[in-house]
Amino acid sequence: MARHAYAGCSEKFITGTASDLEKFRKWAETVPFTVRNPLFHWTHLELQRYFGVKELLNPESADAIYQACTEALQTPEYSTQNLLRKMNVELVCSTDDPVDDLRYHKQTREAGLDIKMLPAFRPDKAILIEKETFPQYISQLGEVAGVDIQSFDQLLEALQNRIAYFDQQGCFLSDHGLEQVYAQDFTNREVDIIFKKRLVGEKLEGSEARKFMSAVLYHLGLMYAEQGWVQQFHLGALRNNSRRMLQQLGPDTGFDSIGDFEQAAALARFLDRLDTGGKLAKTILYNLNPRDNEVMATMIGNFNDGSARGKMQFGSAWWFLDQKDGMEKQINALSNMGLLSCFIGMLTDSRSFLSFPRHEYFRRLLCNLLGNDVHRGELPNDEKWLGGIVQDICYRNAKAYFGF
Amino acid sequence: MARHAYAGCSEKFITGTASDLEKFRKWAETVPFTVRNPLFHWTHLELQRYFGVKELLNPESADAIYQACTEALQTPEYSTQNLLRKMNVELVCSTDDPVDDLRYHKQTREAGLDIKMLPAFRPDKAILIEKETFPQYISQLGEVAGVDIQSFDQLLEALQNRIAYFDQQGCFLSDHGLEQVYAQDFTNREVDIIFKKRLVGEKLEGSEARKFMSAVLYHLGLMYAEQGWVQQFHLGALRNNSRRMLQQLGPDTGFDSIGDFEQAAALARFLDRLDTGGKLAKTILYNLNPRDNEVMATMIGNFNDGSARGKMQFGSAWWFLDQKDGMEKQINALSNMGLLSCFIGMLTDSRSFLSFPRHEYFRRLLCNLLGNDVHRGELPNDEKWLGGIVQDICYRNAKAYFGF
Amino acid sequence: MARHAYAGCSEKFITGTASDLEKFRKWAETVPFTVRNPLFHWTHLELQRYFGVKELLNPESADAIYQACTEALQTPEYSTQNLLRKMNVELVCSTDDPVDDLRYHKQTREAGLDIKMLPAFRPDKAILIEKETFPQYISQLGEVAGVDIQSFDQLLEALQNRIAYFDQQGCFLSDHGLEQVYAQDFTNREVDIIFKKRLVGEKLEGSEARKFMSAVLYHLGLMYAEQGWVQQFHLGALRNNSRRMLQQLGPDTGFDSIGDFEQAAALARFLDRLDTGGKLAKTILYNLNPRDNEVMATMIGNFNDGSARGKMQFGSAWWFLDQKDGMEKQINALSNMGLLSCFIGMLTDSRSFLSFPRHEYFRRLLCNLLGNDVHRGELPNDEKWLGGIVQDICYRNAKAYFGF
Repeated sequence: MARHAYAGCSEKFITGTASDLEKFRKWAETVPFTVRNPLFHWTHLELQRYFGVKELLNPESADAIYQACTEALQTPEYSTQNLLRKMNVELVCSTDDPVDDLRYHKQTREAGLDIKMLPAFRPDKAILIEKETFPQYISQLGEVAGVDIQSFDQLLEALQNRIAYFDQQGCFLSDHGLEQVYAQDFTNREVDIIFKKRLVGEKLEGSEARKFMSAVLYHLGLMYAEQGWVQQFHLGALRNNSRRMLQQLGPDTGFDSIGDFEQAAALARFLDRLDTGGKLAKTILYNLNPRDNEVMATMIGNFNDGSARGKMQFGSAWWFLDQKDGMEKQINALSNMGLLSCFIGMLTDSRSFLSFPRHEYFRRLLCNLLGNDVHRGELPNDEKWLGGIVQDICYRNAKAYFGF
Repeated sequence: MARHAYAGCSEKFITGTASDLEKFRKWAETVPFTVRNPLFHWTHLELQRYFGVKELLNPESADAIYQACTEALQTPEYSTQNLLRKMNVELVCSTDDPVDDLRYHKQTREAGLDIKMLPAFRPDKAILIEKETFPQYISQLGEVAGVDIQSFDQLLEALQNRIAYFDQQGCFLSDHGLEQVYAQDFTNREVDIIFKKRLVGEKLEGSEARKFMSAVLYHLGLMYAEQGWVQQFHLGALRNNSRRMLQQLGPDTGFDSIGDFEQAAALARFLDRLDTGGKLAKTILYNLNPRDNEVMATMIGNFNDGSARGKMQFGSAWWFLDQKDGMEKQINALSNMGLLSCFIGMLTDSRSFLSFPRHEYFRRLLCNLLGNDVHRGELPNDEKWLGGIVQDICYRNAKAYFGF
Repeated sequence: MARHAYAGCSEKFITGTASDLEKFRKWAETVPFTVRNPLFHWTHLELQRYFGVKELLNPESADAIYQACTEALQTPEYSTQNLLRKMNVELVCSTDDPVDDLRYHKQTREAGLDIKMLPAFRPDKAILIEKETFPQYISQLGEVAGVDIQSFDQLLEALQNRIAYFDQQGCFLSDHGLEQVYAQDFTNREVDIIFKKRLVGEKLEGSEARKFMSAVLYHLGLMYAEQGWVQQFHLGALRNNSRRMLQQLGPDTGFDSIGDFEQAAALARFLDRLDTGGKLAKTILYNLNPRDNEVMATMIGNFNDGSARGKMQFGSAWWFLDQKDGMEKQINALSNMGLLSCFIGMLTDSRSFLSFPRHEYFRRLLCNLLGNDVHRGELPNDEKWLGGIVQDICYRNAKAYFGF
């Protein structure tokens, strides 16, 4: 939800028909009321780091700032590629549907961009069998994968084809957005029946859907392990809560929130099933409800088996939690119940070329936590040692983990 | 539970037959052992603000304080109305059952009290269909509402009549105390059958009860929206946990605690159903389990549609959470995931004419949070701006929100 | 999970075939990477308090420290009994299965040890009816108890016999490790059928198992009350999550984690059932998921009936939570929703003769919390009063509570 709707601003000035300047002015009106929200910090950090604007954004400063930024954005210095260079970006991963042909990744690579840009594999639409559009999506997936998908085996074949294709394009990473992980018992035969039932447009029981999703997740897990990929799970969002706004604006427009789903038992069963067969890929768990931080921080410990440093990761605070309080809670839970030093840090959840200062934000609060520990006498005042750990978390661990 | 039972004090000195002085002495004995509990702060704040007593209450000071306060309470200066005036109270809302005739509200109004006193509509007894006393309550409601309630439609008619009556008496506010919100699918026909079954004294299945409660809540929501009222939900209490004490002392005597109910999905469905029909009243969600603060703080964002500033509110920390730690957590969650600046602040949950210093307590910890942010360099040191936001939260927002 | 597996260390150097020195070196390599984990503090606190080692443990210091400690451990001063004396231990409670003959407790007592060592009764294996080994365990229990267990009544008789035996050996304490408390409705006849079904090796439905566990827990609760014992519940662990490591190393080897089970309603029902019959023993609830601290802190309030000071206890932070952040959260929840002053403090969850400095760790963070309150002006600066409360929590309350 855009924060100015909160403050009583009409949708017209958010996603609506108002001009860019009008929208910017409305936003500038709202900014002083975002006090204590990360938007207040992000807004000023972005203005400062990219545009050198050091004033506060508010109705008085709005027009001048709008003009200065608009002018800057017309210059070559502010091309998207230059914005990335300004932030010392080495690698960008996009999130892509299995049906995507990744043409822009190819183009970019062929054009010789000096920043790596790689796809990530996000097959949510092949999993969420209860969605109305599922049958159409499967037919689309079949076409792209060159498989006429009529059975569960053919679905797996198609997914495997797309994984191979993504892998050829440099992908080493999958991602899943789920309310919770599913790990029901299933037989392929049962799942095949459920899948066929849904393909012809029938509605499923909740238990059938969960069986199917359990099966796809498991088989994808096997494929990721075979391929040497890292698998990611973003867990806990309750999505599309306003049907009115879903109809008006579509999904992912700000009407999602934090859910309170049960996480622990199914997650353990899912990971164990893969681990027992020796097929547990490197895994990152991202948690959306801070009440479950400790569940996640201890869950990874069950499967951190020494085969790779920090093989199992409790991912950085994300989405609603992508702010000082949320990140500190994730770091504290991880510190107390795992090894902070092995953390691969903040893999950004950015959708904007101007949002990279959030990494600086993360680094600063990480240093702040360690500094306060030293200040309170809870850690030795050894800047070389602690500084090395900060560098590991903010850069070297991720590089080694993903091998880029 | 009274805190001295905790410390080993017998019920005789709490609700029992001991004299007032004996009870006060027992309490004074306990106070030094309430260290770090809000009772320690409240006790001394109340003694200081109302009675000018600046000593600590303990066995040594008990008798003198008892005498001084007892004497003060005999004087006109300490009438309940004067206690309200002392605290600059503009408006008091009581919580009333739909069957209440509100006679004291009328009397007070007719007597020309300079402080507004208004009822609030709390129809819990018309919703909690599994309670033993439900059928009798419905018959009582029918009488007061002038409707012979034999069907679900007649129940709605009776509730509508009482809402109209409360509205005439100045009411603009409803309140609900529930373990969780219910938002099952239902048809009026199904609900009618369930209701009639219960009226003749039959026991219901859990699923039937939830269907009925879903229906009443939905229809009440429609009525509140029509009437232009604000609806409140106090969620998450687990009540009457000690049957022994329930029998001995009755309900609401200190044997309730914090529950761990699932909240998010049903809440989203309930609010969405009303919103989709354009009938979502201004709403305040109060949360009793701090683990769900983030669920609530993001839930309101789904429906804060710009039609009114802070239309959806995450209410102030309440009951067990009505203390520094609980309030700070609520404020922090709201700050990080919503707009603190639009918050209507602490609507007291007071049951005592001496409990108003809790508002001071709230204001002080709010200022403390903002002051610490400034101190740490996380907010500009701009007292005018931040002071204005504090005044909004502590007074002006509520006044504008409720329109009193 | 051993923290070095996390950091990429192979099991060989943890539980495997490597020599003690090799294992110690690997651990020393890992220690600098345990920054912000309690292991960092515990390691150095243990080295310092027992061995006088004040350097940091790391690869450079490892060999010298290993040698110094190894030499010390050969001297009589470092006998296990002397390690206990060094820490001023008055009483050690072990945790014992009902089938244990407690021979070492007898031996120690007969040898006239100046430190009390008492058993605690932990009948998990008689409760967890779904475990594969349940039928064998029951037969073993029958033998030890001198009862041929063929019915539920005989099971209760056997448990009662063992409780009497433990009591003769000085035991005054039971303990239960459960995901959650069970409090289903049951009849002894139903439970008898379920029990007999399982004894002949059949598998149970989940609901049957819960009924059985509800029954055993209830009857044990009655027996504890009769015997004047204290009952303890350690709730919330999700155990044996890695089948691979369970097979390789057995249970309790570091592959458990924090669960997210529902706790409140069943717990209330269980305690109320005992309380209603006047048979609620002194009870300590230990919570493993910090999100449930407030549920536990308020739950004990429902049954703290004044019959004994702090009869119902919210136990100290435990296992994964046995660290500064976890303990502070437990203390804060207890302070805000109960009476910290009646707390019996940290009953250690130690499995090592070198782990007693964790009590110092607890005492220091407790003092730190109170000191910070005084510093912020939230408590009077009265060292005598606050110091007395600290002494109560750290020593006197437990002594009075258990009566040793």
